Amino acid sequence: MKKVKIGLIGTGYIGRCHAIAYAQAPTVFPLEAELECNYLAEITPELAAQKAKEFGFKRSTGDWRDVVQDPDIDVVDICTPNFLHKEIALAAIEQGKHVYSEKPLALTAEEAKLMFQAAKKAGVKTLVGFNYIKNPTTQLAKEIIERGEIGEIVHFYGTHNEDYLANPNTPRDWHCIKEKAGLGALGDLAAHIVQMSQYLVGSEIKTVIGDMQTVIKTRPNPQNLSEQLPVENEDQATAMVRFENGCMGTIETSRIACGRKMGLSYVITGTKGTISYTQERMAELKLYLHTDDPARQGFKTLLTGPFHPDYKHFCVSAGHGIGFNDQKTVEIRDLINGIANDTPMYPDFEEGFKVSRVLDAIAKSYQEKRWVDVEEVA
Amino acid sequence: MKKVKIGLIGTGYIGRCHAIAYAQAPTVFPLEAELECNYLAEITPELAAQKAKEFGFKRSTGDWRDVVQDPDIDVVDICTPNFLHKEIALAAIEQGKHVYSEKPLALTAEEAKLMFQAAKKAGVKTLVGFNYIKNPTTQLAKEIIERGEIGEIVHFYGTHNEDYLANPNTPRDWHCIKEKAGLGALGDLAAHIVQMSQYLVGSEIKTVIGDMQTVIKTRPNPQNLSEQLPVENEDQATAMVRFENGCMGTIETSRIACGRKMGLSYVITGTKGTISYTQERMAELKLYLHTDDPARQGFKTLLTGPFHPDYKHFCVSAGHGIGFNDQKTVEIRDLINGIANDTPMYPDFEEGFKVSRVLDAIAKSYQEKRWVDVEEVA
Amino acid sequence: MKKVKIGLIGTGYIGRCHAIAYAQAPTVFPLEAELECNYLAEITPELAAQKAKEFGFKRSTGDWRDVVQDPDIDVVDICTPNFLHKEIALAAIEQGKHVYSEKPLALTAEEAKLMFQAAKKAGVKTLVGFNYIKNPTTQLAKEIIERGEIGEIVHFYGTHNEDYLANPNTPRDWHCIKEKAGLGALGDLAAHIVQMSQYLVGSEIKTVIGDMQTVIKTRPNPQNLSEQLPVENEDQATAMVRFENGCMGTIETSRIACGRKMGLSYVITGTKGTISYTQERMAELKLYLHTDDPARQGFKTLLTGPFHPDYKHFCVSAGHGIGFNDQKTVEIRDLINGIANDTPMYPDFEEGFKVSRVLDAIAKSYQEKRWVDVEEVA
Amino acid sequence: MKKVKIGLIGTGYIGRCHAIAYAQAPTVFPLEAELECNYLAEITPELAAQKAKEFGFKRSTGDWRDVVQDPDIDVVDICTPNFLHKEIALAAIEQGKHVYSEKPLALTAEEAKLMFQAAKKAGVKTLVGFNYIKNPTTQLAKEIIERGEIGEIVHFYGTHNEDYLANPNTPRDWHCIKEKAGLGALGDLAAHIVQMSQYLVGSEIKTVIGDMQTVIKTRPNPQNLSEQLPVENEDQATAMVRFENGCMGTIETSRIACGRKMGLSYVITGTKGTISYTQERMAELKLYLHTDDPARQGFKTLLTGPFHPDYKHFCVSAGHGIGFNDQKTVEIRDLINGIANDTPMYPDFEEGFKVSRVLDAIAKSYQEKRWVDVEEVA
Repeated sequence: MKKVKIGLIGTGYIGRCHAIAYAQAPTVFPLEAELECNYLAEITPELAAQKAKEFGFKRSTGDWRDVVQDPDIDVVDICTPNFLHKEIALAAIEQGKHVYSEKPLALTAEEAKLMFQAAKKAGVKTLVGFNYIKNPTTQLAKEIIERGEIGEIVHFYGTHNEDYLANPNTPRDWHCIKEKAGLGALGDLAAHIVQMSQYLVGSEIKTVIGDMQTVIKTRPNPQNLSEQLPVENEDQATAMVRFENGCMGTIETSRIACGRKMGLSYVITGTKGTISYTQERMAELKLYLHTDDPARQGFKTLLTGPFHPDYKHFCVSAGHGIGFNDQKTVEIRDLINGIANDTPMYPDFEEGFKVSRVLDAIAKSYQEKRWVDVEEVA
Repeated sequence: MKKVKIGLIGTGYIGRCHAIAYAQAPTVFPLEAELECNYLAEITPELAAQKAKEFGFKRSTGDWRDVVQDPDIDVVDICTPNFLHKEIALAAIEQGKHVYSEKPLALTAEEAKLMFQAAKKAGVKTLVGFNYIKNPTTQLAKEIIERGEIGEIVHFYGTHNEDYLANPNTPRDWHCIKEKAGLGALGDLAAHIVQMSQYLVGSEIKTVIGDMQTVIKTRPNPQNLSEQLPVENEDQATAMVRFENGCMGTIETSRIACGRKMGLSYVITGTKGTISYTQERMAELKLYLHTDDPARQGFKTLLTGPFHPDYKHFCVSAGHGIGFNDQKTVEIRDLINGIANDTPMYPDFEEGFKVSRVLDAIAKSYQEKRWVDVEEVA
Repeated sequence: MKKVKIGLIGTGYIGRCHAIAYAQAPTVFPLEAELECNYLAEITPELAAQKAKEFGFKRSTGDWRDVVQDPDIDVVDICTPNFLHKEIALAAIEQGKHVYSEKPLALTAEEAKLMFQAAKKAGVKTLVGFNYIKNPTTQLAKEIIERGEIGEIVHFYGTHNEDYLANPNTPRDWHCIKEKAGLGALGDLAAHIVQMSQYLVGSEIKTVIGDMQTVIKTRPNPQNLSEQLPVENEDQATAMVRFENGCMGTIETSRIACGRKMGLSYVITGTKGTISYTQERMAELKLYLHTDDPARQGFKTLLTGPFHPDYKHFCVSAGHGIGFNDQKTVEIRDLINGIANDTPMYPDFEEGFKVSRVLDAIAKSYQEKRWVDVEEVA
Repeated sequence: MKKVKIGLIGTGYIGRCHAIAYAQAPTVFPLEAELECNYLAEITPELAAQKAKEFGFKRSTGDWRDVVQDPDIDVVDICTPNFLHKEIALAAIEQGKHVYSEKPLALTAEEAKLMFQAAKKAGVKTLVGFNYIKNPTTQLAKEIIERGEIGEIVHFYGTHNEDYLANPNTPRDWHCIKEKAGLGALGDLAAHIVQMSQYLVGSEIKTVIGDMQTVIKTRPNPQNLSEQLPVENEDQATAMVRFENGCMGTIETSRIACGRKMGLSYVITGTKGTISYTQERMAELKLYLHTDDPARQGFKTLLTGPFHPDYKHFCVSAGHGIGFNDQKTVEIRDLINGIANDTPMYPDFEEGFKVSRVLDAIAKSYQEKRWVDVEEVA
């Protein structure tokens, strides 16, 4: 059996989720290659060594370049802050590594384009961590749509709202600084719902017009709380979009949306029915069929279970619940099997670029107060 | 005690709701004038006589002009199809009658402007049937906002989605014909949510940009089902708006939104909290306060009860439920007491005009593919 | 057209609900007789006169006997405190009046038996105000069961929980005094769910075993808050029951159930499906069918609408909402039409007696710590 | 760092869940000993070898006695069908092993008593797999109760309903055979809710009275579907209980409860508030406080997050979701740390015995049609 050796760079919030998923994936799924947690990089050798122990990695280093250049590594897994994605990915691609990067792929669509083109040219495989589409429940939504159960899609409403910056006294961190994060809520959150919209509608976003706002204009300096520093990107944004197939859509995002803890949600209206979902109830999908007898019409709450995609690998009984790290585990399965079988992985860097392009087009449309075709951007 | 004599014109769906509300209002509320169901007009004397009997009106006629010109009538209540609102209202105003009209006030903002100005000049009182804001639950939302419980409003998301035309085999009726209905879903449905947004945000919509679509482009001729006739106005529309106070907003409407039977809903985000509501659960308001202890944060489901506005007149115990006709009964109370006490009624023709202006601006912004200031319209 | 003349006795909470329902019923429904609010009794002539005016009754009196003995009255409507039901009903029956009484029919099953037998002997019609079964949503539940959509019923779980006495500082009122109220939560609340269980299961409760508790053993004297008086009946009770047809059931009731404002609810499990309901969302019924494709199974939320029993008389569109007084209006329709057509009314005094018998059997089974057959009681 | 070596016996549904939890536990939690998946037994050496590979265990055997007798094993983990629990546990205890057993601990309370006494005498640690109480959400419920936030508990309503045998055509398996399974729904499902009730109420069940029913009396023989075999234990059961502290409770269980996929739920009423939960939404707890302003009372939906017990180890953001295997991972943490630190583990065999005693008492009370004190049983 082939072995796939992972080099993980970055061990913060999302790096740790990767580590949990690596740990459970071989037990959960019949992987088609042996997964080895091989090498781990952090910003100091000490931190790297400690995290390698916690996460079950064999080796560690204080310099990410060691991982990228190591001949024994098959996949470079990038879990660093956003502004480092490009440099690391390009270096890894140059070394002929497959690259698995967290989202957003880059700070701008132009950077993302460079990355996707470099990977394409080098012939390496890529995967972007849009893990929410790996949830069995959203895979079920996809299945329902593809089978035509709700007819032709005529409207997509999607949100990714959270409230992690709702409190104006929360100090400014890198998310609020343009050169570290790029866009604000759009880049950090809406990337997910934009990608998901294209996956579920089965068509790409073609034109957009957006509105944006920085509601909390300054925040305390984390080093000196009595000083206020400017917030450099948007707290909330809305965009109206049109997909290639003509479908109308609305995307909303906010990082100050009080009460929305994991407010990734969609309502997808078709000519024959509707599906509705919120990530806060990640094991439930609501399905309405207009073809039902009028006296028995209504939204049905489907609890994800073994009759739905991938669920049975976690549990054989319906309604027992899957968690955030479980959807990451599905993503790891796709990574390992994609490499083992030399088959395409989805969503790849090209998809990552297309998502960045939509986000940049939204920002541009806001600045220019007009509808923008996404191809204008990059 | 003063007497207020009602002349009702039109007895279809909404006219019947008025009649039910007139019947129960004097028992529900301590009205400040005696309400008399005096005169009723329909398109034939026979139908008018029959409906007068059913609805408890003293007199009836087959010509609405009789009602308008009758010296014994204080209020002309217009429940006709939309395209007749203007003519009847102007005639009633000319006779010095107070006018209570169903929404949308007119087919266009220009017509609505004429009506509101005529009423103003004549010094008569006006009221438009935006009854959903009379629901004790939405009054409670208003109270929560006004007391500053959720801070400053930073985002309004509102919908009025229904599915009454979701089936493409439903024959074309007057709703789909421009000269009878004016706008499609915007005029029939979004009028409510636009008005409600201004009421709840406490600020008027200043600029808009909209997108619209006629999804089902032809429908069977009701007289000859094998023939298809064009649908002349939009099935669905979305608009991004900005209120005078800078608040961002999104309005969505559809008459083909499968599964949404009474999909009037709002999510209002403030700097300190959020409220959320759907008319399908008209006795529930969800309230989130970000100032709660982080370990005890969450949306609280308030069941409307006697501690909330107007509810106690229907029932002294919480959670017992209020219905659609009950909110109309609150509206009737406002009508009668406004006339009895010679105090302003809300929402009046000026508000009705402002709503029409927003709707027309959305349509214009769609045609011209640009942001439109509502004052450009009329 | 025949006229039905009502004599109303008692104008508190529930008397007022009757008055609202009388006011709107003729407009809502095509009644088969003319309904006349004729005579009203209260404890003083002044109060009676005032309420007659508010409620639109022609005449009033300070002595209920006047109503009962008035030759011009067809129906005596009893909305007094429970302990007066028997005396008034028997007097009315003696005068050959039809009797419409609020629930519980009497303080004990024995009293209720006397009443039902007297009415039967006199040949007068009777109706008991178990209005919750008149809600179109619960009528829909009945229809679903009767059509066999969920198969044979194998389990009934029902509650009537409220929290009106949850606060131990709430002074003692008549509900807590045995000779005024009879049973506590069982009589005041569980009467409804017991009656509803028999209606929905389509079979009568045969044997019971109950548990009961007075949690708050004393309450302030309303005349002297510093004094504590004993609470004489139960705050909460549970009973396991078996219906005639073998179906298992559980009934729970409480007047100290914090947070339950109108916690009348049922979950009815059949061999092929399940329905679930709570009165706090009185326009929603949840329906699950086990015969659905396993990958599309789930509870469907039906919003009550014009395709369901009686709803269309209130509104022609689904999801617009019906309220507490609307279900009372359906009850009034049944009253008037039952008398007009000389057809049986349901639920009548016999059903009221059977409910009281179940309640008394629960109390007895608690005292004797054993299963009790309801026929042991009365 | 100390090492804890696991010997796993049984690899079906629940054995696989254990394996997933073992795999992720060291990454999720800072365990206080090194966890080693050492030895695995199945019914044949081949199956054992295959599962050892899938689950990451070092060694395997076709005879569970090898595991029990292996000097290198610290913990024997029993995931076999119920009827083998006793024999394996007693053998393991005899060898001085710590024992971690799935529920129900044994087929009868008497067997469970033997097991708990043997473990006590041998001084080995024990843990029973009542994993649902390890869910951070239910731990939060416990915290809320212990802090007195809802006052003194006055009522517990709990269910464990599923529908895995709702279809009468599902062939009979070991769950329906007395000598393999012992009780039916009570043993398989209610064990969880009975244990959870004692955990949450903070008091033990003292007396019970139950009702039970085998609704589907025969099922097809799995070897010959045209033949029907008797179902030997109950499909559904209800019990009224009283806890030591006087609190009333109701427990319901069913394996034919159409639509309930993971219907473990509780509603716990206190003198100052109420909490409500269903395992189907395992990351949500509803909390009502009667001390809130009457105009702002309501059930608040808490989404489990990093401010609640154990959640932060899975994810640092609230509302991201935890799954069924995650609560098993918490249980594994308790196992490893309990052994590492030589501290008591909960729930242990004594608790397992007490649960079995309650279940047997319910069955006895049904047969004898009377209230039974749990101490009468074993």
